[in-house]
Amino acid sequence: MAYLFVGEGREYLLEPGETLESDLGILEVPEGVAAGETVETHLGTEFVARELRGPDLFHHFERTGAPMMPRDIGLVMGHTGVKQGDHVLDAGTGTGVLAASLGRAGAEVLSYEQDPEFAEVARENMELGSVADAVEVRAGDVTEEIDELTGSAFDLVTLDTADAPTVVARAPELLAPGGFLAVYSPFVEATSEVVETAREAGLEEVESLETIQREMDVGDRGTRPSTAGVGHTGYLTFARNPV
Amino acid sequence: MAYLFVGEGREYLLEPGETLESDLGILEVPEGVAAGETVETHLGTEFVARELRGPDLFHHFERTGAPMMPRDIGLVMGHTGVKQGDHVLDAGTGTGVLAASLGRAGAEVLSYEQDPEFAEVARENMELGSVADAVEVRAGDVTEEIDELTGSAFDLVTLDTADAPTVVARAPELLAPGGFLAVYSPFVEATSEVVETAREAGLEEVESLETIQREMDVGDRGTRPSTAGVGHTGYLTFARNPV
Amino acid sequence: MAYLFVGEGREYLLEPGETLESDLGILEVPEGVAAGETVETHLGTEFVARELRGPDLFHHFERTGAPMMPRDIGLVMGHTGVKQGDHVLDAGTGTGVLAASLGRAGAEVLSYEQDPEFAEVARENMELGSVADAVEVRAGDVTEEIDELTGSAFDLVTLDTADAPTVVARAPELLAPGGFLAVYSPFVEATSEVVETAREAGLEEVESLETIQREMDVGDRGTRPSTAGVGHTGYLTFARNPV
Amino acid sequence: MAYLFVGEGREYLLEPGETLESDLGILEVPEGVAAGETVETHLGTEFVARELRGPDLFHHFERTGAPMMPRDIGLVMGHTGVKQGDHVLDAGTGTGVLAASLGRAGAEVLSYEQDPEFAEVARENMELGSVADAVEVRAGDVTEEIDELTGSAFDLVTLDTADAPTVVARAPELLAPGGFLAVYSPFVEATSEVVETAREAGLEEVESLETIQREMDVGDRGTRPSTAGVGHTGYLTFARNPV
Repeated sequence: MAYLFVGEGREYLLEPGETLESDLGILEVPEGVAAGETVETHLGTEFVARELRGPDLFHHFERTGAPMMPRDIGLVMGHTGVKQGDHVLDAGTGTGVLAASLGRAGAEVLSYEQDPEFAEVARENMELGSVADAVEVRAGDVTEEIDELTGSAFDLVTLDTADAPTVVARAPELLAPGGFLAVYSPFVEATSEVVETAREAGLEEVESLETIQREMDVGDRGTRPSTAGVGHTGYLTFARNPV
Repeated sequence: MAYLFVGEGREYLLEPGETLESDLGILEVPEGVAAGETVETHLGTEFVARELRGPDLFHHFERTGAPMMPRDIGLVMGHTGVKQGDHVLDAGTGTGVLAASLGRAGAEVLSYEQDPEFAEVARENMELGSVADAVEVRAGDVTEEIDELTGSAFDLVTLDTADAPTVVARAPELLAPGGFLAVYSPFVEATSEVVETAREAGLEEVESLETIQREMDVGDRGTRPSTAGVGHTGYLTFARNPV
Repeated sequence: MAYLFVGEGREYLLEPGETLESDLGILEVPEGVAAGETVETHLGTEFVARELRGPDLFHHFERTGAPMMPRDIGLVMGHTGVKQGDHVLDAGTGTGVLAASLGRAGAEVLSYEQDPEFAEVARENMELGSVADAVEVRAGDVTEEIDELTGSAFDLVTLDTADAPTVVARAPELLAPGGFLAVYSPFVEATSEVVETAREAGLEEVESLETIQREMDVGDRGTRPSTAGVGHTGYLTFARNPV
Repeated sequence: MAYLFVGEGREYLLEPGETLESDLGILEVPEGVAAGETVETHLGTEFVARELRGPDLFHHFERTGAPMMPRDIGLVMGHTGVKQGDHVLDAGTGTGVLAASLGRAGAEVLSYEQDPEFAEVARENMELGSVADAVEVRAGDVTEEIDELTGSAFDLVTLDTADAPTVVARAPELLAPGGFLAVYSPFVEATSEVVETAREAGLEEVESLETIQREMDVGDRGTRPSTAGVGHTGYLTFARNPV
């Protein structure tokens, strides 16, 4: 299990037994290292071993595309109330930060990624995120396997794919009673299509949310929202299986 | 364990063995009822039993104040990456939706509520949310018990109290290396004070976020943000213990 | 010329010579009344005569639909820099607050309103707004009269109509060099069509803006954005004739 | 009077009689040039003469600080309904885009700038904006001359200064009945102070607005708010003299 080694304002992701050489000296990570322990380089610089936490995954996962932002992952979790033991169907995996985050909250996740190489990277990311047991990354197209998945009574179906509407149309067959659908789509037109498809499929509590998040600057002259601005990520559409 | 009984566009929270009389007939909930089962009233109206999911807690918990919104709960979860097995210190409990949501994601939560009656209501809410084992609601003032709590190496400290700065000042003693602080405050001035206190305490990655969320209306004439608007809830300030 | 008579927290729009009876007594407006003068009812209650200012027009114009909000009128003025002596083509007039506001800033406005009855109401609103000389409200469809309007070298063309793209396509023939187009559209799809049409027509500096405005609540407990929220009005698309 | 000469995607601000040398050739601006005319360089490149419009002032005024953005100028105009013939008191002038914009809409503006050199630059900007007759820029501190200004019955008082509250406290003496106050302040704390001072001074319709503006991206893949984000500028507080 890899740890973050943090010291002198730097942060390195290292496995037990690994050796890192830098201008701060040679850092040999002991085999039995544990979170919270301090390791010194041969020049005496101290690094503290830290477990990777959720937002660290966002920074240290190998990326195969733009990963979903922590805020959007959180909104999916908050609006659907995902919990330990939930069964989740996820497509497409991408970098895998959403799947990993759901797995870390105790869900069992089946995640589809069309690109086999991306799927392989995502699997390695699940190892790094300590959720290889909780998250199965399947290389393939979820729309082609829906017939086998119906009746699985998923508690949550999360979609971040161009052909989300195809899956949304089948959501009532995929979801448990009261189960949630969550679809991420960057564009308005795709969002509208998801909403209309969800309504036609008989899903309830269909709502599409836009979230604008800004940092507040607290300084000597006073407090104000950041002048830097924070841009759009995507719309999140939620819906629920009535029965 | 209580279930939601959903039918004819209505939803009732009932325990096994409970009887409900309404204009749709008498509904007798069998002792051994399970999620997904259908129960009929004596007039033949069907109700499906559903487990309570996160957003249901928001609607069915007994309230002792305005509960934190699902979106803000989600943002706390997303920005801190809370996961199974995490140790969380929470104050003040209030209605308990945040504590319950963290508990449902597998965390062990110690939550302080100053008002003993509110604490008792929160404990009942934890029963309803199936997290009575994961969340301990303690009646009392966290600021008076901080000395006993230091060294606990909490993975996450969540605060929604007027005297949050007092706890923030001690956060480095309360948090594990890399652990997160999350403070909810409705007002700008209180937010600024939290930010300044967090900086003085030596916490890192201090950021205060404002989140504006709007519903998108998808209709025959086109798509647009809701004309109804969505109001402010609170600022969320996050910070991290460097070591 | 009508004035607002303001007193005891009330406000009445009255013409010189008019008489108003209320529980505060009979108010007889003298023929030669001027702004700033005080008039008493026969019971001695004082009312101060006020000129109608821009935001008063918004409240006192007779409405034939939802009038454009002061903020959107202001954004049109600020982003196009309308000034005294500018020639403006406006369609559709509606209640006429935009046309009146532009006229009050010194522009000469030709405004088209398809509905003849609405046009008549708008003309009366221009009288009330003291801009009957500056704003000509023409009953009819601007798209049918474009051929006669080309070459007029308008400094500004403002559109709030369902068939805005038809006019946008001809905007280069309507606008002076550097002249501005401003289109108000509530829906995303219509906004996209306007943007695409403006680009195809060869207009430059095409930008479509969404504006979210919130009230700040300043109270004893602190300052925060309003919990009431402020809803969407419309997107404003601006573009400019390059030559 | 200077014009913008626009050609080959460039734009030069030149006076009649002025000569510009560039890689496109020598451009000699005729003495009697008028807006809309085309002038050729000695190499045959055409430039069209354009009047400066409001947003051009923003780009071509000499800056003595961050000028107020077109959107904020527009919001002041829209929320106060400034019109031809209005008397405006403005402090501090800064670069002068607000004063110039109000002057261009027909108002007579008296603008105070504490720094004499900045005041001189602002005066030159008024020449460039063709409003030297309408806008008087006075070097000095408005708070020291308030006693002479009371009774002027200004239709509008606009403030963008650190000591705005001092003037706000006197606003009832400065404003005509129904006249407007508009205060721009980047920080929350200053905004709160302005709001409280306005209330204590007996002003009515006190409201403080925050405006978030975003560009919409219209592209082949669909439409979405810009991922670039648009940052905070300032809060605008409006209030009105009741009598």
